[in-house]
Amino acid sequence: MKEYLENVRCVAPLIHNITNYVTANDVANVLLACGASPIMADEEAEVEEITAHCMGLNLNLGTLNQKKIPAMQKAGKMANKLGHVVVLDPVGVGASSFRKQTAEQLLKEVRFDAIRGNISEIKTLASLCGTQEKNSGNMAVSDTMDVEKITDKSDHCGKITGIDGSGRGVDADNADTVTEENLAQHISNAKMLSKKLQTIVAITGAIDLVTDGSSCYVIRNGNPQMGHVTGAGCQLSGILTAFLAANPENKLQAAAAAVCMMGYAGELAAEKSGQSGSGTYRVSLMDAVSCMDGDILERGARYEIR
Amino acid sequence: MKEYLENVRCVAPLIHNITNYVTANDVANVLLACGASPIMADEEAEVEEITAHCMGLNLNLGTLNQKKIPAMQKAGKMANKLGHVVVLDPVGVGASSFRKQTAEQLLKEVRFDAIRGNISEIKTLASLCGTQEKNSGNMAVSDTMDVEKITDKSDHCGKITGIDGSGRGVDADNADTVTEENLAQHISNAKMLSKKLQTIVAITGAIDLVTDGSSCYVIRNGNPQMGHVTGAGCQLSGILTAFLAANPENKLQAAAAAVCMMGYAGELAAEKSGQSGSGTYRVSLMDAVSCMDGDILERGARYEIR
Amino acid sequence: MKEYLENVRCVAPLIHNITNYVTANDVANVLLACGASPIMADEEAEVEEITAHCMGLNLNLGTLNQKKIPAMQKAGKMANKLGHVVVLDPVGVGASSFRKQTAEQLLKEVRFDAIRGNISEIKTLASLCGTQEKNSGNMAVSDTMDVEKITDKSDHCGKITGIDGSGRGVDADNADTVTEENLAQHISNAKMLSKKLQTIVAITGAIDLVTDGSSCYVIRNGNPQMGHVTGAGCQLSGILTAFLAANPENKLQAAAAAVCMMGYAGELAAEKSGQSGSGTYRVSLMDAVSCMDGDILERGARYEIR
Repeated sequence: MKEYLENVRCVAPLIHNITNYVTANDVANVLLACGASPIMADEEAEVEEITAHCMGLNLNLGTLNQKKIPAMQKAGKMANKLGHVVVLDPVGVGASSFRKQTAEQLLKEVRFDAIRGNISEIKTLASLCGTQEKNSGNMAVSDTMDVEKITDKSDHCGKITGIDGSGRGVDADNADTVTEENLAQHISNAKMLSKKLQTIVAITGAIDLVTDGSSCYVIRNGNPQMGHVTGAGCQLSGILTAFLAANPENKLQAAAAAVCMMGYAGELAAEKSGQSGSGTYRVSLMDAVSCMDGDILERGARYEIR
Repeated sequence: MKEYLENVRCVAPLIHNITNYVTANDVANVLLACGASPIMADEEAEVEEITAHCMGLNLNLGTLNQKKIPAMQKAGKMANKLGHVVVLDPVGVGASSFRKQTAEQLLKEVRFDAIRGNISEIKTLASLCGTQEKNSGNMAVSDTMDVEKITDKSDHCGKITGIDGSGRGVDADNADTVTEENLAQHISNAKMLSKKLQTIVAITGAIDLVTDGSSCYVIRNGNPQMGHVTGAGCQLSGILTAFLAANPENKLQAAAAAVCMMGYAGELAAEKSGQSGSGTYRVSLMDAVSCMDGDILERGARYEIR
Repeated sequence: MKEYLENVRCVAPLIHNITNYVTANDVANVLLACGASPIMADEEAEVEEITAHCMGLNLNLGTLNQKKIPAMQKAGKMANKLGHVVVLDPVGVGASSFRKQTAEQLLKEVRFDAIRGNISEIKTLASLCGTQEKNSGNMAVSDTMDVEKITDKSDHCGKITGIDGSGRGVDADNADTVTEENLAQHISNAKMLSKKLQTIVAITGAIDLVTDGSSCYVIRNGNPQMGHVTGAGCQLSGILTAFLAANPENKLQAAAAAVCMMGYAGELAAEKSGQSGSGTYRVSLMDAVSCMDGDILERGARYEIR
């Protein structure tokens, strides 16, 4: 894990974020904290030019509005054209038809290197890509995916029994929680979701799963207090974009490292802030990211590959 | 007071916020801190669907723009239709005709369960509802109000001598400050404002008044440092929405409990942070809300009913 | 320096901010922390009325969008008409044609009392005002400038060799860094930029330069950790607006005092937070501004006038 963080701190990738106004400040600060550099810009008239200056693009569906949709599309296409890393965070995608339609459109028009969300969000996304013929030119299989395993593309993009996104708000359904008991089934599902979405998926929860459809990192870092502050997910998506941008040859591993880092920062923050409360916890979380180096991450990352 | 907070932590109501981008992060975090769950969404195309998933709706006029107006109207009407709690925070309503007109329109089209603001904001609001015939179907008297005391509705919605909103910015006029000396007059005025606005009003300041037009909670919690950070008012409006949503049978009492809680959190934060400065105070305020339980609130709440 | 801060705390100027959603919360809090009062409003329909209530206007190009442009123009013209202080923070102006064109338009239509940015941003701005005939009525020389030194206005607004903005993102180019070795050249350039832009410029970096084209304050306050949190620059632009608004007779000195204050707060925050990390540093920075008084600033300010 060590080298992926060190590459971020060394390369200092400039990351373009089209994100929500609730956690934009947190995302900007956490990008700085992990060694990257943020720029936030969501005006259609400038996003292509902005993203061209950057190494990665982070699209986040929180506080989505009509004006941001063409901005996301243009930025996404330009980033694809230039070979930049593009990450999608489908915040609350199950909460409205508007978000679902936007996500569906983005999945058709933009090739994502990774998608990060909770299990409900990822399942909702996957359910969207079976509704019509896929433009495979736009949804090319990502470098790190094992194409051989995708034997019947239309089938993978069709309805998969037992996979249906039902998250109402921005939180995952409890019924979907990954536990040690249902882990094997969830790993299998995560791989199917990754294949269906044709990209790396990072499904975060009590146990995090990061998979390219072939290998799956099962990550046991994290702390429940992360759910008591807003924006830990958005922050992780920002970090994830930076890790992929700085490690283009090892995207799956870099994605797993980003997830380990955020989770371990969450543990360190809990140790440091104790029972002080969610205000202090939030500050400690940012501290932990900014103080993390390769050695700390290497010692703290808890994962297995399945 | 104890049970109203405990109900919030037990019910964990999902609250839809159409709010300003200055304090949206604070509002989301404080909702999590008090045990509720936030979702921010202000796109007209999705607000009805979003608010239908929620238990309460919090409308905040800060950084108002044209696009948010139909979103507020649609969300408000849908929440009314579904019997959800709706709260208005008329941030800086006296600062522009645009905000005044928007507030006037909202008061006509949406039935609010509570309105929270400083005295200047509440007075400005009340002055708006006298300017034309009231659509009483849309502005039905809330459950907790004593209709018997409203003998002449048109009169209460007309000009009331001595009540005129003159707040220029987002702060209340000094001349309007509630003090022990002018308290009786202010209680009387607060009840009139509540009757005129046909909803619970929470007028926050050095002394807070929460009234349904009949009873008035006089609340002496709070700390002057709360005025040295932005967003304490917006946060309280979020908390207030959560308290009403989780306590639909006791809205006035729940509203008073929310105000006591925020005020007492402000006191605890001042004790904890001392003279550290406004950055630490802000963090401690969030900590205090997140650590508050029913017993702490019960012991700390300082109020009388008049 | 002492009196300029004391005037802010005494006058408590209301500052209107049309700013980005990434750091709007920080700007509001830092204005409160330095003794001013913030209002954020960017809807075209209300900005003239809002800014008329205020003493200063702070325009910030971060997260710029189409709708904010007429808002900035209207607010700027109204503030000019009323003799209010107007400050421009050209965040990432070199990052897109859209920002450049907007900045160019604003420079033509609005008279700024000060512009604050990093060296790349200021150079980009200056390059814009040579592209066409200047409307000297709108770009009148500010009070504190030495008009005698501007012998040929068209020449100063033309291309200046060696001055070209090339900042890609929101950070300054390293090649542009002001050091002790190239200081004399940078002071000379800063004065030229100020003359060209016909306003006070505050160029912030490792060494800050504040000049009206005649005198140049060379300020050695600050700490590298300020660059590890987002928004220190935006916060300074807010503070700068407040200092100018409260000290209209001594704009250059007040601008220098604002820069010293933010930089010294950055030093105090580094002492207090040590190696805790960027979350704690950010909180300590706000604490330091809120605890700063005239005496502390007087003792801590490190500057020379060249």
